[in-house]
Amino acid sequence: MGSMRKNWFHSLPNEALHAEFLQDVSKLLLKEAVFAGTQRKNPVVRFHDPDHLYDLLNLTPTEKPATHTELLKAICDTINFSVKTGHPYFINQLFSSVDPYGLAGQWVTDALNPSMYTYEVAPVFTLMEAVVLEEICQLVGFPSGDGMFCPGGSFANGTAINLARFKYFPDIKRDGLGCAPKLVMFASEDAHYSVHKMAALLGLGEQNVCSVQTDKTGRMDSLYLESQVQRIIATGAVPFMVVATAGTTVLGAFDPLPAIADVCTKYNLWFHVDAAWGGGLLFSRTHHHKLIGLDRADSVVWNPHKLLAAPQQCSMLLVRHPNIIKACHACNATYLFQKDKFYDVSIDFGDKYLQCGRRADVFKFWFMWKAKGSIGFEEHVNALMDCASYITTSLRQRPSFKLVLEPEFINVCFWYIPQSLQGLQEQPDFNEKLHKIAPRMKELMMRKGSMMISYQPLQSLPNFFRFVVQNSGVTHQDVDYFLDELDRLGADL
Amino acid sequence: MGSMRKNWFHSLPNEALHAEFLQDVSKLLLKEAVFAGTQRKNPVVRFHDPDHLYDLLNLTPTEKPATHTELLKAICDTINFSVKTGHPYFINQLFSSVDPYGLAGQWVTDALNPSMYTYEVAPVFTLMEAVVLEEICQLVGFPSGDGMFCPGGSFANGTAINLARFKYFPDIKRDGLGCAPKLVMFASEDAHYSVHKMAALLGLGEQNVCSVQTDKTGRMDSLYLESQVQRIIATGAVPFMVVATAGTTVLGAFDPLPAIADVCTKYNLWFHVDAAWGGGLLFSRTHHHKLIGLDRADSVVWNPHKLLAAPQQCSMLLVRHPNIIKACHACNATYLFQKDKFYDVSIDFGDKYLQCGRRADVFKFWFMWKAKGSIGFEEHVNALMDCASYITTSLRQRPSFKLVLEPEFINVCFWYIPQSLQGLQEQPDFNEKLHKIAPRMKELMMRKGSMMISYQPLQSLPNFFRFVVQNSGVTHQDVDYFLDELDRLGADL
Repeated sequence: MGSMRKNWFHSLPNEALHAEFLQDVSKLLLKEAVFAGTQRKNPVVRFHDPDHLYDLLNLTPTEKPATHTELLKAICDTINFSVKTGHPYFINQLFSSVDPYGLAGQWVTDALNPSMYTYEVAPVFTLMEAVVLEEICQLVGFPSGDGMFCPGGSFANGTAINLARFKYFPDIKRDGLGCAPKLVMFASEDAHYSVHKMAALLGLGEQNVCSVQTDKTGRMDSLYLESQVQRIIATGAVPFMVVATAGTTVLGAFDPLPAIADVCTKYNLWFHVDAAWGGGLLFSRTHHHKLIGLDRADSVVWNPHKLLAAPQQCSMLLVRHPNIIKACHACNATYLFQKDKFYDVSIDFGDKYLQCGRRADVFKFWFMWKAKGSIGFEEHVNALMDCASYITTSLRQRPSFKLVLEPEFINVCFWYIPQSLQGLQEQPDFNEKLHKIAPRMKELMMRKGSMMISYQPLQSLPNFFRFVVQNSGVTHQDVDYFLDELDRLGADL
Repeated sequence: MGSMRKNWFHSLPNEALHAEFLQDVSKLLLKEAVFAGTQRKNPVVRFHDPDHLYDLLNLTPTEKPATHTELLKAICDTINFSVKTGHPYFINQLFSSVDPYGLAGQWVTDALNPSMYTYEVAPVFTLMEAVVLEEICQLVGFPSGDGMFCPGGSFANGTAINLARFKYFPDIKRDGLGCAPKLVMFASEDAHYSVHKMAALLGLGEQNVCSVQTDKTGRMDSLYLESQVQRIIATGAVPFMVVATAGTTVLGAFDPLPAIADVCTKYNLWFHVDAAWGGGLLFSRTHHHKLIGLDRADSVVWNPHKLLAAPQQCSMLLVRHPNIIKACHACNATYLFQKDKFYDVSIDFGDKYLQCGRRADVFKFWFMWKAKGSIGFEEHVNALMDCASYITTSLRQRPSFKLVLEPEFINVCFWYIPQSLQGLQEQPDFNEKLHKIAPRMKELMMRKGSMMISYQPLQSLPNFFRFVVQNSGVTHQDVDYFLDELDRLGADL
């Protein structure tokens, strides 16, 4: 085995062995992970408690190399005990399904293993990023905008905060926050938690994210926003940014973008929209009206790995202003961004990024887009919205299901009320009892492997389930199955 | 084609088409990208200027879907015009080669498409991360340490800065930098530029990274460091952190960790080591002495995607202190990190991360480790060090090559001095002329596709080349080829 430890270039016998191994792996993956793993008759997960799973697997690295047989066994175990996030019954997070073109795109990217910073090293992917970012800027409504890929929506939001701060106080880049007044930003109480994490990371402080009330549909109250802006100004601190959300994580609410834009204009605030979840609606002529006002934003975060089902990860930050990303981030490292190259170095985009080496997250998305066309994304999104509508209608017809609120988007939030609790809504401990139902049902479904759906509390509401179907292969029959299965799991509680 | 746009679960004919397509893709990748793309007889790159390449490719997304034939053509084009970073003649960056086990690991990860935050969604990968981080902590010398994966070394360095700041001024997380004195950190003038980028992002300010002189071998001068710490204290600002580098980007220098640790102890500073590049030496019993003192660090960044040739990206931050990562980052989002789950939620590591959704970068590295064993990594690293030694010896025997300094690591930095400039070292415009040689040779090699090696200036030194061979499949014959080829390219300049 000794000679197999090195990389593969040096001898033909090794090359043949490696080729055979990679062929075996790709066959195994297609058969077990991609096809068997997503068939309805097979479980979504074979759940074991952490200690038990640890014992079942053989995870500790060893001194000596493993054989190809052992390695294939390790892959089989990994597939066997992993959650099948591509399974139609996995509706647990804001991502799901395995798109064949997205997967092919990942495999291409891996085989070429680029790192993104210069045209020199990644010519095709560099051009592809430029084209995709420009197209998405057009779609968002930033005709002379700029954009960048980010390692997930959290860092994308953090980057937007940094740009906003830079616009009003560019000296912070060089001198630090010591040169600036106390800065305050605004986000709704249902905004993603990354806004707080990033405010802490950027040295602004979590408590300088002023929480704005939502209305009963989960949307930011723009009148309350304005009153908070005025309150902060009166304290002597300086408001600089509002983070609106287009598709909140739990309720799927769309903040009123035009009204928030008006407040931002009036008080000269950076208007950021976290459309990580809802951005995909732009592809749908039927539904893009939910994003009216997006073109008034200064910056937008959009994750195609959510609604559009691109593989993990694909996250973009789009900015109205053409030059600010580079101005804010550039550091002019001479070892990487040499000015005396033989081609036009304005295409070496790396210096505008916070990352140095970076995966090419563009290809899978570009490839899906090519495979489906814009019209394919539109059909996908429309199918999801139709599915959410069917879920809502079906829920209403079942006595054990109660909507938390009228869904505006793909998130359909509901309580399952088992027969033992029905009619007891007025009892003082009803909410306390209801709060325990979803966790119990979640355990049952996971141990059975029959489906995965998430639950959560929200503000003072007891735990409720959240349907989020982003897999346009999910049928009405699947929805019936979900509801029947929840009835089976919860009936006797 | 209409029915092919959706995801694939809903009908068998589509499933068969998708299966066939993915099989075609994996065959094409193995043949063209992985094997043909890394054969010595084939070019490293088929270079075209950006405008021309743009015309050759068909990148603009369309309304309508493409056929499978068109998609396979797009993959062929992408392979054809991409730089073959796995080719043995690609020695342009701090990553190279295609490891078959690393590639298999990526493909497995993609097929399962996990996102990392909870055990519920990624049980196998969660346990794997815990095992790998614990093993690496042991290797670094943090017996009760903690660790996390990061999207690249830059964000890993930034995260370390945030931890350091949190240790001394935990209130900054909540209240922002307004509650803290002026904070200053220290890094050598050859430290990676991400230190400055991240200081800006974190609101500390680039100019509050105090630049420490290096000695003539590129190592931080620890006496100068101490004098700078004293100088900053005298100004009334507060030093809080030193960033040492184990393997600098250009020269491959190792800062004197024990001496720097002494300064950090004396002045109560967080001791961070950026070992993104050099960390892999820990696997080598012959060479790990270069990292003596690493176990005295508070935090260490290590990128297996560099020296150990894991695919893009695999980057870890290791921390001596067991609880600080979570304390610094936790946000307790109740929609994701529910406390009333049915399993022990202490294994839901997501809240200690700055990212929310996150790729499983662990599997490829775990899988390589299993495939090769620790001894395989050791042989790989030793082979690279031997190769660097052979390069150095060979360079010395050729009149047109001049070492910039005696190499300490894999970086072998040298000038190519064409015959027209030999013997003219004393002329006043020699450096100016020499400065133009490397860019010219780089253009020639790229247009020819015969090899890729990077050049850069450093401080006042004119442009020089940097050999960095991280592909243990590179042979002595390959090194001879590199030197002969440079002679061919540069002889007539």
